[in-house]
Amino acid sequence: MAAAFNIDISTIPVNKDLVKERATASFKVAELTHIIDGGPEKTKRRKELESIVLSDPLFLNKNGVNLTKSEAYENALQKSVKLKSWRRQYNWSEEDYEIITNRINCFDEALTLHHTMFIPALERLCNEEQKARWLPLALNYRIIGTYAQTELGHGTNLMRLETTATFDPETDEFVMNSPQISSMKWWPGGLGKSSTHAIVLAQLYVRDKHHGLQAFIVPLRSLEDHKPLPGITVGDIGPKMALANVDNGFLIMDKYRIPRDNMLMGNAVVTREGKFQMLRADKSNYSTMMYVRVQIVQWSAFTLLPGTVMAVRYSAARRQSSLKPGGEEVQILDYQTQQYKLFPALAAAHATSFAAQTLRREYDAALGDLLKGNKQVMGEFHSQTSVMKALCSDIAVEHAEILRRSCGGHGYMLLSGLAPLYTSSLGLVTVEGENTVLYQQTARYLMRQMAATLSGLTVGHSCSYLADPQETELSITSPEQLRDLDLLLTLFKRAAQRIVSQTAQRLQADMERGLPQDQAWNKNMVALVRAAKAHGWQTLVQYNVRAVQGLRGSTSPELATVLHRLCCLFALHAIETNAGNFLETEVLNPGELGLVREVEMGLLGEIRPDAVALVDAVDYPDSSLQSALGAYDGNVYERMYKTALTEPMNRTDVHPSYYKHLRGFIKGTSSKL
Amino acid sequence: MAAAFNIDISTIPVNKDLVKERATASFKVAELTHIIDGGPEKTKRRKELESIVLSDPLFLNKNGVNLTKSEAYENALQKSVKLKSWRRQYNWSEEDYEIITNRINCFDEALTLHHTMFIPALERLCNEEQKARWLPLALNYRIIGTYAQTELGHGTNLMRLETTATFDPETDEFVMNSPQISSMKWWPGGLGKSSTHAIVLAQLYVRDKHHGLQAFIVPLRSLEDHKPLPGITVGDIGPKMALANVDNGFLIMDKYRIPRDNMLMGNAVVTREGKFQMLRADKSNYSTMMYVRVQIVQWSAFTLLPGTVMAVRYSAARRQSSLKPGGEEVQILDYQTQQYKLFPALAAAHATSFAAQTLRREYDAALGDLLKGNKQVMGEFHSQTSVMKALCSDIAVEHAEILRRSCGGHGYMLLSGLAPLYTSSLGLVTVEGENTVLYQQTARYLMRQMAATLSGLTVGHSCSYLADPQETELSITSPEQLRDLDLLLTLFKRAAQRIVSQTAQRLQADMERGLPQDQAWNKNMVALVRAAKAHGWQTLVQYNVRAVQGLRGSTSPELATVLHRLCCLFALHAIETNAGNFLETEVLNPGELGLVREVEMGLLGEIRPDAVALVDAVDYPDSSLQSALGAYDGNVYERMYKTALTEPMNRTDVHPSYYKHLRGFIKGTSSKL
Repeated sequence: MAAAFNIDISTIPVNKDLVKERATASFKVAELTHIIDGGPEKTKRRKELESIVLSDPLFLNKNGVNLTKSEAYENALQKSVKLKSWRRQYNWSEEDYEIITNRINCFDEALTLHHTMFIPALERLCNEEQKARWLPLALNYRIIGTYAQTELGHGTNLMRLETTATFDPETDEFVMNSPQISSMKWWPGGLGKSSTHAIVLAQLYVRDKHHGLQAFIVPLRSLEDHKPLPGITVGDIGPKMALANVDNGFLIMDKYRIPRDNMLMGNAVVTREGKFQMLRADKSNYSTMMYVRVQIVQWSAFTLLPGTVMAVRYSAARRQSSLKPGGEEVQILDYQTQQYKLFPALAAAHATSFAAQTLRREYDAALGDLLKGNKQVMGEFHSQTSVMKALCSDIAVEHAEILRRSCGGHGYMLLSGLAPLYTSSLGLVTVEGENTVLYQQTARYLMRQMAATLSGLTVGHSCSYLADPQETELSITSPEQLRDLDLLLTLFKRAAQRIVSQTAQRLQADMERGLPQDQAWNKNMVALVRAAKAHGWQTLVQYNVRAVQGLRGSTSPELATVLHRLCCLFALHAIETNAGNFLETEVLNPGELGLVREVEMGLLGEIRPDAVALVDAVDYPDSSLQSALGAYDGNVYERMYKTALTEPMNRTDVHPSYYKHLRGFIKGTSSKL
Repeated sequence: MAAAFNIDISTIPVNKDLVKERATASFKVAELTHIIDGGPEKTKRRKELESIVLSDPLFLNKNGVNLTKSEAYENALQKSVKLKSWRRQYNWSEEDYEIITNRINCFDEALTLHHTMFIPALERLCNEEQKARWLPLALNYRIIGTYAQTELGHGTNLMRLETTATFDPETDEFVMNSPQISSMKWWPGGLGKSSTHAIVLAQLYVRDKHHGLQAFIVPLRSLEDHKPLPGITVGDIGPKMALANVDNGFLIMDKYRIPRDNMLMGNAVVTREGKFQMLRADKSNYSTMMYVRVQIVQWSAFTLLPGTVMAVRYSAARRQSSLKPGGEEVQILDYQTQQYKLFPALAAAHATSFAAQTLRREYDAALGDLLKGNKQVMGEFHSQTSVMKALCSDIAVEHAEILRRSCGGHGYMLLSGLAPLYTSSLGLVTVEGENTVLYQQTARYLMRQMAATLSGLTVGHSCSYLADPQETELSITSPEQLRDLDLLLTLFKRAAQRIVSQTAQRLQADMERGLPQDQAWNKNMVALVRAAKAHGWQTLVQYNVRAVQGLRGSTSPELATVLHRLCCLFALHAIETNAGNFLETEVLNPGELGLVREVEMGLLGEIRPDAVALVDAVDYPDSSLQSALGAYDGNVYERMYKTALTEPMNRTDVHPSYYKHLRGFIKGTSSKL
């Protein structure tokens, strides 16, 4: 198709509204960039990595929105191979690679699980000989692996996985089998088309005795020609809401034999004679699970950060309607309702980013204890990572969708960048622990801690507030009080304390009335989830408040003011949108809630002049953002038009289906009218 | 790919849990089906239409999830041509065709706008000669048309559309022009590839004088070979979150000439001499807009109805975990948290369905007044349709996403049916009036009505509650009171009255303090939207309560009980999830809110035994549902597996990209490692 407007975007000046916005920011953009990256030296490192990755045209990928699923997979596979080759060539650290994944290539890889799941599982589950055999193959990419746990019929309840591994003492082999439809492995990334090997979780049977779930390394495809091996059926599970780059797959094993030594024997062994022996409980499995949940908190931030960039820049560049009849059209960023969509998302982006940084530090600090199986630390960290994974991913997808809608109809197009960001992020709420299940896990911990509190026993640090005496009524009479971060945190603690405590009382009362524990739990399940969320909110606000307070000494006063505003807005918006929790527990009265609204609306106005600078500080190159609405230069309409020209339907002026279906119909010559 | 499990779904018996569920329903399924359809004769008619449409393999469309955008368009185009041919052949009424669109073919057409926008616009805007010329061509499909209003740069603010139509008195033509990028038409359905003609809205200039927006019929493509005509550039705007079936398009006109008679002259004329004359104000335009908004309320119901079918059946068929350690795995439908996701959605499906039926009746009743331009009726109906469109579509997409997530990871796959249902429904919140803008339109009406109330003037019927004296404190002391529909409605009215009134007071106070009206409005914009929503909720609850009360006389006691439960649940869930509104206005106190929760949780348990029967009553054939999770027989895993086998990536065991990218990498023979 010939372009009716000939546009060379590189020659168009920056949108003048964006120029104006950038001239008036109250703080230095680079200073905030360093905080988001985690320090100036990390910003420097990121930019070095960007200069390598984004110098290759493969990673500019301008028309990604038009790829079919198969093309998207191929494109991501090519990127994976390139990045893994570079990884070896430049000797990139794990942290380097994470930066590339999270915010340069933005998750557009096919072979993700090889490094994030397969190799860590080998390290964790192999004995020394097995490590010596398999790790070099994996690290040198002579084999490509994935981790196959979830089945069609079982995700949450791992104990009931149906795949079997039966030891055959005659041949010294395990017979791997998928006994029925629901037992096939389903979902593992890279399983469908890419992986040559999988670590498969299966129920072990030795001489008719069941020994629970064990892990096996299963060759899937020939290393000669990549064909599935006899007895193996693998394939792609089909299209998803997004993530076409990953070949999530299914695996059916038909009495497929592997040598005995392919059982990963770091934690348990089966001897040649068919003796099963546990060596140690696998604690590291839990630590991996928690690590992945911490990563999802990080990914929640990496959803919201680029999302705000796109929506805020679009809102500064888009003019529509005016407040006065006949007046000049205003930037939609000036409407209070638009600010109310954008700025709480910006505040949430920083809140989840701070939470990820905090959790990462806590994880590193606790790792030794976790690996030793310190039950107290494990229980508490499990509870905290469960609720933070659930809450931060819930928050991320909620705001991502609000950001998308803030761009009106244009946000419905994939070229917006916001639409694919949202549908990608939706995976976070069900993956690696479905959120409702995770809230319940935290609720269990909270109920135990509540009981401990009442018995005067010591409780985990994260729950010490449950025992706080609530001696003084807080009386909020002036707006200024609602900018006191410690006071805001106290409000969340008190609301959580009362909700957790009331839920525990009701659960207890139901059991005292004779309801069996399982029925009492189910009868209060919605309330228990609510209690876990209230606890999660006070945790998240605390992480956020402490992070902002901790930065006070080292930032310029201008930036400190901006961060303080965002931190207040995050808390106040959460109070206002969960007002029922604060009023029902009488932590706030209606008049105080009125003040909350007033201060919140005031903050929107204060943040407004810095909005574009705030998202510039997030510092995503256009090539990483991939958003026609959110590019640095704000030339929204030009990019939308240029992108539309690449739509495959526009390859010919007349679509081929015209000749087949429409021509005869319009001309009245269709045979069957 | 060879199937490792050979499955013939038609021979597998119905899932035994579904059999069990169906045996224990408390009411007759067909009786509810009649209510949803609008009467037994309408159910009969629907089934007749189903038997025609679904007898054609084209409409079974088993692998729709795997189509590329271009294939999905072709498939939908073929369906459009077939349905429109049948429409003529069987002489289907508009209502027949709506039934097919909404719930047999489920919106999978390409040429939608021809009948919904193009022909109505011709009827509305043409003079008699023009009607005689264009309507037969359109009705006989000799031309295919669309309606081109929105531009890249303007959607909400129509007055600032930038396309121009300049009268050239020398040639007796209009010169249609798209002066800059932002002026190109963008979004109209069918514009990209299908339409031969468009009704284009443009700023009319006659002898340098501007005469506002007028409508023109613009030939786009040759009727001979369908090629775009010289001066016309049209194309598809590119991929969206869903709706690949529709070729939403852009249109650029480069000083494109059309005869003077192509201006639609029913409301205004330009004479041969270049004299412009208004004939009448176009009232019917407003009535069309309101009609479309009523339809979106209907489409909101047609999102939730099939959505609940899919999620409830899956939840009955899926077993996962147990409440007691070591116990049998339970149907996930038995978990309270799952019921809390499903049943409020079911209640909302009926609530939006009742709202659509009510609004449709009110529209039909008011149509005469509307067309006459009765300002009072127009203002009120405009306000009511605005808020109902916004609120019902907000509710629909919110619950659609909760339903999708209730299916865990499997809900993330397109084969779930819920994922595409959700992404399709997301269009509803920004199309035909972006929801935040619509809430503001209703807020404007409410502020005027509030002022009228205070001045003792009469107000619209929909707002009469604003003047209600709130003499008695309602004291809720027993759960039974919360099953009194009139009492529930009163709670919503009181909350709305107080929120609207407080917002009006604050707006007034800001203006009295000297703030100009536009600034005062913007300062209170978030509050105004909140006020409109509160009004919308009381309207929706009222429609729902009145509908259920109205059915009491004519339904069996069993069904009346079931409908009463759903109606209560709808109201109580709305109170509980918007608890802040009721506590802040002191319509409820914390103790009463506790009762609300208690009754709500009780209702979940009461609805549980009827859950599957309730969705069976929605009566979607499997071919219309297109959901591997939600088919009538509940054979979820078999359908998921069969569908995965159709994924194009599985056409070959080894994906072609292996040879290009992976082989050399794995074998260590890539040139650049």
